Amino acid sequence: MELNKRQTEILEIVKMDGPITGEQIAERLNLVRATIRPDLAILTMAGYLDARPRVGYFYSGKKTVQSVADSMIGMKVGDFQSIPVVVADTVSVYDAICQMFLEDVGTLFVIDKSSNLSGVLSRKDLLRTSLGNNELEKIPVHVIMTRMPNITYCKKQDTLLYAAQKMIDQQIDSLPVVIEKEEGLEVVGRITKTNITAAFLSLAEDHEL
Amino acid sequence: MELNKRQTEILEIVKMDGPITGEQIAERLNLVRATIRPDLAILTMAGYLDARPRVGYFYSGKKTVQSVADSMIGMKVGDFQSIPVVVADTVSVYDAICQMFLEDVGTLFVIDKSSNLSGVLSRKDLLRTSLGNNELEKIPVHVIMTRMPNITYCKKQDTLLYAAQKMIDQQIDSLPVVIEKEEGLEVVGRITKTNITAAFLSLAEDHEL
Repeated sequence: MELNKRQTEILEIVKMDGPITGEQIAERLNLVRATIRPDLAILTMAGYLDARPRVGYFYSGKKTVQSVADSMIGMKVGDFQSIPVVVADTVSVYDAICQMFLEDVGTLFVIDKSSNLSGVLSRKDLLRTSLGNNELEKIPVHVIMTRMPNITYCKKQDTLLYAAQKMIDQQIDSLPVVIEKEEGLEVVGRITKTNITAAFLSLAEDHEL
Repeated sequence: MELNKRQTEILEIVKMDGPITGEQIAERLNLVRATIRPDLAILTMAGYLDARPRVGYFYSGKKTVQSVADSMIGMKVGDFQSIPVVVADTVSVYDAICQMFLEDVGTLFVIDKSSNLSGVLSRKDLLRTSLGNNELEKIPVHVIMTRMPNITYCKKQDTLLYAAQKMIDQQIDSLPVVIEKEEGLEVVGRITKTNITAAFLSLAEDHEL
């Protein structure tokens, strides 16, 4: 639920100086007690404020102050991303597979000699190549990777909902988080369906569901 | 936000008989208008009701009537699960990999000759085995699979939050959905981080976030 300007002001006053009486709050706002009565009723009933007789209003401190919906909209990629694992485009498929196991990730990002994003390697790509192929040491990853401009990416400041939608639409398990520069894309993070699953759980936990 | 008993009653009255004035609602509840004023204010501000001058209150019809929190708690595995892909424990690793690509899944469930769940195969298991191994046709999957009782599973009626928590805790990408029988576990579904990501998006969509 959205609070209006006056309700937000009241909430701020009580947060700062509570417990405080309705009279005192009204005074601070240059209003009479009767004017703010509905606002106090709303704030109390919605769980933002608690009231105690002969003490006054105090801030409930409940996390219900932000609704689950608001939390969800406010989730940013930057707050949930993981560390990216990158390999040079010249390494072999064999080394890439070893790297994937070593770091225990499902996706590797491939960078060119200027350190810009040039490709993506999934477990699926590597499994497909390894099947019946005995010379994995001799194949460089740039031969099998998904390459720019076919890579879907996102930025730190994108919402988690945006990233989730991209992964579902493109049927992929992760996205590189990048900074767009003139020379190319610098990889600064990795967002995965595991991050989304963790965010889903954190929503429930933060709101004590 | 949780509605109290009176607010729920008001909502029901407006749903049934709206548009209806505040006076009329109060009358139905044997209360005076002033008593229900804060309730009406809350219901309106929270988007449950709309008010129009000289017409009265009417039901907004928005899906916000169920809070995002309630929707989230109510999500069941059975409503989001995918079709499981199963292989017999006697098939070769090579055939399992082919099956995985054919069905485009990240996990295969392995069943014994009585069709009960006996193991799980992830892309990671198969990639590890295929690395430098030229005789994938000769290795049966039961040699490399994760086997009972080390398999984490869930049931249709479990909440999606429960399944998400299990996947995060166990660091796995999917769970078999089973029916527990005396003879063993019958596999009836598959729940993955993709399903959780889709559920996360559906929450936002259903509530028009």
